[in-house]
Amino acid sequence: MNKKKENKSASKLKIIPLGGLEQIGMNITAFEYEDSIIVVDCGLAFPADDMLGIDLVIPDITYLKDNADKVKGFVITHGHEDHIGALPYILKEINVPVYATRLTMGIIENKLKEHNLVKGTKRKVVKFGQSINLGQFRVEYIKTNHSIVDAAALAIYSPAGIVVHTGDFKVDYTPVFGDAIDLPRFAEIGRKGVLALMCDSTNAERPGFTPSERTVGKTFDTLFEEHKNTRIFVATFASNVDRVQQIINSAYKYGRKVVVEGRSMVTIIETAIHLGCISIPENTLIEIDQLKNCPDEQQVIITTGSQGESMAALSRMASNMHKKITIGHGDTVIFSSNPIPGNEKAVTRVINELLRKGADVIFQDTHVSGHACQEEIKLIYTLVHPKYAVPVHGEYKHLKAQAKIAENLGIDKENIFILSSGEVLELDENKASVTGRVPVGSILVDGLGVGDVGNVVLRDRQHLAEDGILIVVMSLDKYTGQLAAGPDIVSRGFVYVRESDELMEEAHQVVDSAISNCIDRGITDWGKLKSTTKDALSEYVWRKTKRRPMILPIIMEV
Amino acid sequence: MNKKKENKSASKLKIIPLGGLEQIGMNITAFEYEDSIIVVDCGLAFPADDMLGIDLVIPDITYLKDNADKVKGFVITHGHEDHIGALPYILKEINVPVYATRLTMGIIENKLKEHNLVKGTKRKVVKFGQSINLGQFRVEYIKTNHSIVDAAALAIYSPAGIVVHTGDFKVDYTPVFGDAIDLPRFAEIGRKGVLALMCDSTNAERPGFTPSERTVGKTFDTLFEEHKNTRIFVATFASNVDRVQQIINSAYKYGRKVVVEGRSMVTIIETAIHLGCISIPENTLIEIDQLKNCPDEQQVIITTGSQGESMAALSRMASNMHKKITIGHGDTVIFSSNPIPGNEKAVTRVINELLRKGADVIFQDTHVSGHACQEEIKLIYTLVHPKYAVPVHGEYKHLKAQAKIAENLGIDKENIFILSSGEVLELDENKASVTGRVPVGSILVDGLGVGDVGNVVLRDRQHLAEDGILIVVMSLDKYTGQLAAGPDIVSRGFVYVRESDELMEEAHQVVDSAISNCIDRGITDWGKLKSTTKDALSEYVWRKTKRRPMILPIIMEV
Repeated sequence: MNKKKENKSASKLKIIPLGGLEQIGMNITAFEYEDSIIVVDCGLAFPADDMLGIDLVIPDITYLKDNADKVKGFVITHGHEDHIGALPYILKEINVPVYATRLTMGIIENKLKEHNLVKGTKRKVVKFGQSINLGQFRVEYIKTNHSIVDAAALAIYSPAGIVVHTGDFKVDYTPVFGDAIDLPRFAEIGRKGVLALMCDSTNAERPGFTPSERTVGKTFDTLFEEHKNTRIFVATFASNVDRVQQIINSAYKYGRKVVVEGRSMVTIIETAIHLGCISIPENTLIEIDQLKNCPDEQQVIITTGSQGESMAALSRMASNMHKKITIGHGDTVIFSSNPIPGNEKAVTRVINELLRKGADVIFQDTHVSGHACQEEIKLIYTLVHPKYAVPVHGEYKHLKAQAKIAENLGIDKENIFILSSGEVLELDENKASVTGRVPVGSILVDGLGVGDVGNVVLRDRQHLAEDGILIVVMSLDKYTGQLAAGPDIVSRGFVYVRESDELMEEAHQVVDSAISNCIDRGITDWGKLKSTTKDALSEYVWRKTKRRPMILPIIMEV
Repeated sequence: MNKKKENKSASKLKIIPLGGLEQIGMNITAFEYEDSIIVVDCGLAFPADDMLGIDLVIPDITYLKDNADKVKGFVITHGHEDHIGALPYILKEINVPVYATRLTMGIIENKLKEHNLVKGTKRKVVKFGQSINLGQFRVEYIKTNHSIVDAAALAIYSPAGIVVHTGDFKVDYTPVFGDAIDLPRFAEIGRKGVLALMCDSTNAERPGFTPSERTVGKTFDTLFEEHKNTRIFVATFASNVDRVQQIINSAYKYGRKVVVEGRSMVTIIETAIHLGCISIPENTLIEIDQLKNCPDEQQVIITTGSQGESMAALSRMASNMHKKITIGHGDTVIFSSNPIPGNEKAVTRVINELLRKGADVIFQDTHVSGHACQEEIKLIYTLVHPKYAVPVHGEYKHLKAQAKIAENLGIDKENIFILSSGEVLELDENKASVTGRVPVGSILVDGLGVGDVGNVVLRDRQHLAEDGILIVVMSLDKYTGQLAAGPDIVSRGFVYVRESDELMEEAHQVVDSAISNCIDRGITDWGKLKSTTKDALSEYVWRKTKRRPMILPIIMEV
């Protein structure tokens, strides 16, 4: 980099999204000022439809590794996977302290335990209102509301000015646990003068205000009243502790015992209990094995699987695959969730299955969003009154919708930035502009492998998935160059062989004659032999079936 | 079958869904009375997510083939794929006449042409109000409204009584083309006494009334007025002729030329023009190549791709892959459609792409459903006043919702039947019950292959897609049983090999020692040799990577 330019820009703040903005999920943003970098959040993404066999996706942090001496730590806003999920992987590459609020840290620690990283990781639990100093930065944690307890916004103080990052948030004046979002603090900071606001865009297309979490509690009371004589199942997000609290409240009120089922939910609820983020009346929570001593109409089963995940507890209970509980005739199943985009079909599949089994399925007025709608976004903009707007969290269309809101609130169009992953936004009081781009990318995790599945492997998997594989093996005599054995053709995922004996027989003849032809002409180059075989077989198969299986010639020398 | 039983049931009508009710899409229902069978519709389904590489799914009509002498013909309700798409495949197996209304038959004929079946297929175009005699049945075509022109309900007269089948329908008092649904005829038939009503359930969960197609026309006028200075793109369903008519009307009103783009839409619109189902003002429809002579603000491009299909015209225009048109800054794109469940993510992907290119994307109030909501369903039930209700068309949850409506309207719970595919409902004035089950199933079409991809092949494709394949090849000396060459390991879709040399090297050692071990112990059975190789390699790979690629040992003898 040009030394002069670097000096010139030295007094500016840089904001660099390292994975989050284009790829829903991977929220990770670097803030850089001179010799200091802090990183807000460290999320994972779930694989796109075409990432066959991939378990999860984490960000490429080459930029952080290249600047490792500058990186002061991760400041985390809340405990959802798309904000913390990549931490165990990334901390193995760059070991810096992690800062988070109580429940968020509890959830992070569960993850670190699985990866044997607890001991090696410096962690600090931050209270709301508290600030931490990280090099040139000071970061203040501000209370917000969201679909998980202990969510925070961050005020990031730098010599170039203050940036307010909302994290994921909504405005809940009557939250189930803890206080309402600290709007007065947003106003105070706004009055100091804020350089940039980075605000949650998820619901920026939706007019109005997101209802309070408490409204769902009222619905539960009504539903429990209406279904006094049946077993009640409630499916919801594992991490929505407030939701679980409200279900437990209704259960207690109507004299029911509660079982929590599904590994991820059990883990989070245990952590929440341990940290005092949920309060459960005595003798209300029971073990799954105690259900048999409890009449149906005194049971509530809170379960994972609200997104139709085929391996989650709800699906297994619906399809008689669960070891201890089967949902059937007369049961009431409440979906306390909306399908996340892409999961609609899977959710419907489970609903149909439940209805077919005779269960009563309820999915109205039993969920509220954890994200701010348009009026809440306007409120935050008005309190914070930033010079620049950098919409975050959401797909492009959501960011765009927030940009429109910001513009309507009087922010100059040139002061609104929708950043792509890797773009470097440099800003200070005088000017903000995208000045460059750092390397970013997605790293695929498959089983224990991190990054060993790339585009070539994915393309092969897609090819194999589409039409299967035809393997042609042959042995050549190393002295004569003549066929010693084969060619044999083996197929997988192509056609059911017994159904197509004729096809395979003809394919064999095609390969035979292609190879003989080569050998007769004295061709001994294996590459040539392979490509001739491949072309001949491929042409034949396409003509006969209009399919393009992968064709893999293998030659052995004997 | 027991002869006595057959005689006893001879005077009852049988209704047998052959593919439609559980698997959305494949609408095909047999009506049988003594020596006569008629088949209502003959649809295809689109493959489920786990049917890798499959193009489409058609019903197994073993039952019709086994009773071929009874089958009098196919009576088709309307021209959507899920009602006519399997015809070209099924007619090859059982060649009987096809009955349909004008546009429906036009679309069917396009399909028959592609399969060279026009000449060999007896076809009859039926007018609304007309009846056709088919063995013991008489079938009357009744005008309805739907999202395609010329949709019909059927009154099926049998000696056992009348069945009214609505097809897919809505009540549109102000349709764009042709008359409103013939409610008076439904009432007349209802007064005669109707045995069973088979009514469209798609929107049975939605309260109220589906708005008239004309309401969308008004929205187009407003949007065309608001976007006078930009090019306008409208994406909609290829077969929605009325929608295209209304877009053309607005275009003409605002002095714009229209291009229709996307193969399926072009075909259907040509057919509609030919049959007089759409009326286009002179000089309004132009060829795509004439666009260059036409200023942007005088253009409308009506296109396929409203479901986010990656190969459709809209996606290609959004991603600069279209040969003649690119969508960019300043263009207005109207989605005149809702995402079909399962397509939400694909649609959002296209919307994001369009926004990123700088287009203005509109998707509010630009679509109405083609299916009846609750009030319309109640209206039809009230007019037809059936003894039995057999909800059709929809997922289980929709059928269930209609069953609830029927019950609320006073139909006995025992007289409401949600049939599974293959169930035989026998009914007459006195009694209705499910008396048996006939063979049914899904036949997968992949390229030119019909039915040659079954569960084994699909499972292999899923396995290959998940973790790829490891092929172990070796040559054995046929006299000594010793290794003559190999073992070699070739992988595809597993890991990118250069990244994991060590892994592959160790895998090689594992295989080597497993095979040597066998040979040393004098094991010559190839099956044993293969399974030993497979187990050893599989165990090693799982331990090292937590993946389970397909492992395929191949032995050659030299």
